[in-house]
Amino acid sequence: MRWWGWGESERSDGLGPRTLRLLGEELGRLAGPRPPVALEHVHLEDATLASGALEELRRIVGERHVRQDHAERVRHAAGKGYPDLVRLRAGKPEGAPDAVVMPGSHEQLRAVLELCQRSSLAAVPFGGGTSVVGGVAPLAGEHAGVIALDTRRLASVVALDRSSLTVTVEGGLRAPALERHLAARGLTLGHFPQSFEYVSLGGCAATRSAGQASSGYGAIEKMIVGLRLAAPAGDIALPPVPASAAGPGLRQLLVGSEGTLGVIDQLSLRVRPAPAERLYEGAFFRDFDAGTGALRMLAQERAMPELARLSDEQETRVTLALSSSGGLRGKLGQAYLGARGYRGGCLAILGFEGSGEHRVRRKRARALIRAAGGLALGRGPGEVWLASRFAAPYLRDELLTHGVMVETLETATQWSNLARLHRLVGDAIAAELRRGAGGGLVMCHVSHLYETGASLYFTFLALRGEDEIERWRAVKQAAGDAIMTGGGTITHHHAIGRDHEPWLGQEIGATGISALRALKRELDPRAIMNPGKLLP
Amino acid sequence: MRWWGWGESERSDGLGPRTLRLLGEELGRLAGPRPPVALEHVHLEDATLASGALEELRRIVGERHVRQDHAERVRHAAGKGYPDLVRLRAGKPEGAPDAVVMPGSHEQLRAVLELCQRSSLAAVPFGGGTSVVGGVAPLAGEHAGVIALDTRRLASVVALDRSSLTVTVEGGLRAPALERHLAARGLTLGHFPQSFEYVSLGGCAATRSAGQASSGYGAIEKMIVGLRLAAPAGDIALPPVPASAAGPGLRQLLVGSEGTLGVIDQLSLRVRPAPAERLYEGAFFRDFDAGTGALRMLAQERAMPELARLSDEQETRVTLALSSSGGLRGKLGQAYLGARGYRGGCLAILGFEGSGEHRVRRKRARALIRAAGGLALGRGPGEVWLASRFAAPYLRDELLTHGVMVETLETATQWSNLARLHRLVGDAIAAELRRGAGGGLVMCHVSHLYETGASLYFTFLALRGEDEIERWRAVKQAAGDAIMTGGGTITHHHAIGRDHEPWLGQEIGATGISALRALKRELDPRAIMNPGKLLP
Repeated sequence: MRWWGWGESERSDGLGPRTLRLLGEELGRLAGPRPPVALEHVHLEDATLASGALEELRRIVGERHVRQDHAERVRHAAGKGYPDLVRLRAGKPEGAPDAVVMPGSHEQLRAVLELCQRSSLAAVPFGGGTSVVGGVAPLAGEHAGVIALDTRRLASVVALDRSSLTVTVEGGLRAPALERHLAARGLTLGHFPQSFEYVSLGGCAATRSAGQASSGYGAIEKMIVGLRLAAPAGDIALPPVPASAAGPGLRQLLVGSEGTLGVIDQLSLRVRPAPAERLYEGAFFRDFDAGTGALRMLAQERAMPELARLSDEQETRVTLALSSSGGLRGKLGQAYLGARGYRGGCLAILGFEGSGEHRVRRKRARALIRAAGGLALGRGPGEVWLASRFAAPYLRDELLTHGVMVETLETATQWSNLARLHRLVGDAIAAELRRGAGGGLVMCHVSHLYETGASLYFTFLALRGEDEIERWRAVKQAAGDAIMTGGGTITHHHAIGRDHEPWLGQEIGATGISALRALKRELDPRAIMNPGKLLP
Repeated sequence: MRWWGWGESERSDGLGPRTLRLLGEELGRLAGPRPPVALEHVHLEDATLASGALEELRRIVGERHVRQDHAERVRHAAGKGYPDLVRLRAGKPEGAPDAVVMPGSHEQLRAVLELCQRSSLAAVPFGGGTSVVGGVAPLAGEHAGVIALDTRRLASVVALDRSSLTVTVEGGLRAPALERHLAARGLTLGHFPQSFEYVSLGGCAATRSAGQASSGYGAIEKMIVGLRLAAPAGDIALPPVPASAAGPGLRQLLVGSEGTLGVIDQLSLRVRPAPAERLYEGAFFRDFDAGTGALRMLAQERAMPELARLSDEQETRVTLALSSSGGLRGKLGQAYLGARGYRGGCLAILGFEGSGEHRVRRKRARALIRAAGGLALGRGPGEVWLASRFAAPYLRDELLTHGVMVETLETATQWSNLARLHRLVGDAIAAELRRGAGGGLVMCHVSHLYETGASLYFTFLALRGEDEIERWRAVKQAAGDAIMTGGGTITHHHAIGRDHEPWLGQEIGATGISALRALKRELDPRAIMNPGKLLP
């Protein structure tokens, strides 16, 4: 992945004239392009690893699996959050690991953790490096140095149990590699986060990742039947039984541990038969309330699509405005919708996957949508969405280059609270953008449906301007406070990392924090694992 | 509930002549009836509570909510496991709480916990008192005394969110009371463990209870969206959001804590529309493998029934032999099945519930069952099963009276391991019964289906004889060892309690145990909560 953004270095989508015009209208005059600095101009402090520790690391994992060169250190200097990218593009990351260490086995990983404990080295687990909440920031904490513990060599498929429909993989395996392996055998995991192209499965587990099709397939936490955590104090290996009443749920405790308790270096996941058909289609609702009401019906009346997302009026407007003539705009046309009384309404994308049963479910869903006043738009919008489902991070790079701040944040709440939370958080972001950035654009969609509620995913754009990280922080603060006030969770699938840590105490309470700290002390007594993340 | 067994004291089903004859044939000559001793002949040590603590307890919860009378102490002297009942019926329980304390509010509960910490009193949370694994044994641990913390007064429905389909209840609310409350509003929780008539929702949460219809509704852990634990160190209150990536999964950590970390005194649960129809029916399979193969298809091909259970050959034989002429036997007849080549096969009960969609699911299921060579038996067997779904604990009392040892134990494993584990555990129990009890009867059924596996539920019977608790212990030991060797979990839904504690370390490892101990130290620093349970 390119060090300053997303994707391979060759790829550049650019921004079309329609997008540039819309951005100008919405945000004000764009500055000229601000490309990232050259890699060699990125400033890093010298690595400070003691020579003894360095030699020992090389002995454990092999010389070529301990990297200290500029390029590798830069690639492990940050995740892919907005402030990460801003700093990287300017050539001024906050820091970099003293070494990038790539263990090739569980035993090597354990030996590295033990060395880190002995040598007072912080270890930052690094899978795909896609965290958008500061989860892989190379912070040393109170230690003499910090290494990135890159799991890329722990990437094998350990076992496939075709009868039980489970697959056991090493934590560093990337999602696309697993999907290819499964597809060749007629199976799928069904985990497709926007970061799909780069994420590791261990990283997904550590951060409670939810894929776009989580309404049907469940978030990663629903897929995990067993896992192994390599903690400094020892391993916790939980067998892949389908369920157990053997005390507190340790599986779900390790899921979401964000590298602060150890490294999830092996996990067993439920898989499913690959769907024979994927039916993705559009629907249009008069307004956001009508749309959320329909989604709620789908979730509660056994008509759950694999994927469901409903854009609010603002996001719908921008989506339609930006779509090319071959896309949504051409196929539907604002005029058409307007003529039928849907101007200013909300676009939904619903995806049904399966090998027969999904068609029955879809039929029920269509009836519920009609009953809620929804207008079926057919497969065009669904195909457009599918074709660009992983495009947003690429687009973000282009926006940054054109001087636009763009960030996303998300929450989840009960159905009864969804409209209120949508309003509260959207208003808070907009108000802060007006205050600090002279205005901006706030959009939202509902996705990741559950019987009892759903998530809200906000995107906001503004001109980058000066002090952009401070401005970003002010918006995050306003949004996080609004989420807490409004009864949402501080994060539905981005995790806590560094950025959400100020609110964790509000969400789980002081005693909850104490409980997590006690666990941390037990499993990571020298506090070497991913300092400065998760726990305040 | 009657102090020496199950149900109200008036009720006594007796054992019919057919049952007595079968037991004689299978187990050998039954001894004459051994009824329980009279309540006044139950021997208890005197309560040893210091008068200061007693006064303070009375001040906190009110005089009449602190009980020290013989009857209440006996009722809280044990759960409903086999050794519990043997000891109670003989008038020799292991011990009894020094007082039964019934807080009437969260604040009273907190005050009681604080008093217990100050006064070195152990507190044993007591909901329905239905534990079959020693979970409510009144053990004082290292403390001066022990109280039963009876939650019966914490039994209100706090809030119903009709739009989100969640209900918030106090932990002491009984399952039937909640179902009545919900039924009046067209809703159901769908949680029907065999102990349904007496369990509290907080107790279900604390023990990871799974209802008979968990294949469709999920075990309690799937229903809980939020909860509050009153721990000695403070409260942990987790909001009822549908999902969250805010760090480790504390909800699932508190679920299954078995009263050792605190009292789950409030919880929010997902509910569902009450089904308009319940279709329960029978199917017959040539053998156990054919039946489990069919159940696996139902679970993996989106044809999951709400309830599914498949008896092995032995359980099927006994079920048919015991059923009255109005029941299974009359309606089907061994002859009928035999003529079609199913003699010696396996009976399954499948239940579909819903308001339309379930019929489509059932149709798919029937096709899969036919393809697996299953024979549809219609609704007769399903109705018979429904009518007696909560009868087993009553029957157990009658068996004990007639000198029969009867116990159940359960596990869960992946589909690929189910046949092997069934054989291993069944053989281990049978071998130990032959060794210690001169033989006996071992039966099993598969239930609680998941996409990746299912549970196995064993029932065994033998003559009680002398040293019956030692014999029971030997069988539990053999079965538990076989479960661990065979790759199962030590418990699917009975919890750990006291009886399964020897195997927890094998299941979650030494580091897993250390993690739970650290958590316990933090939340319950004086170790007052439910000593001697869960953790070795």
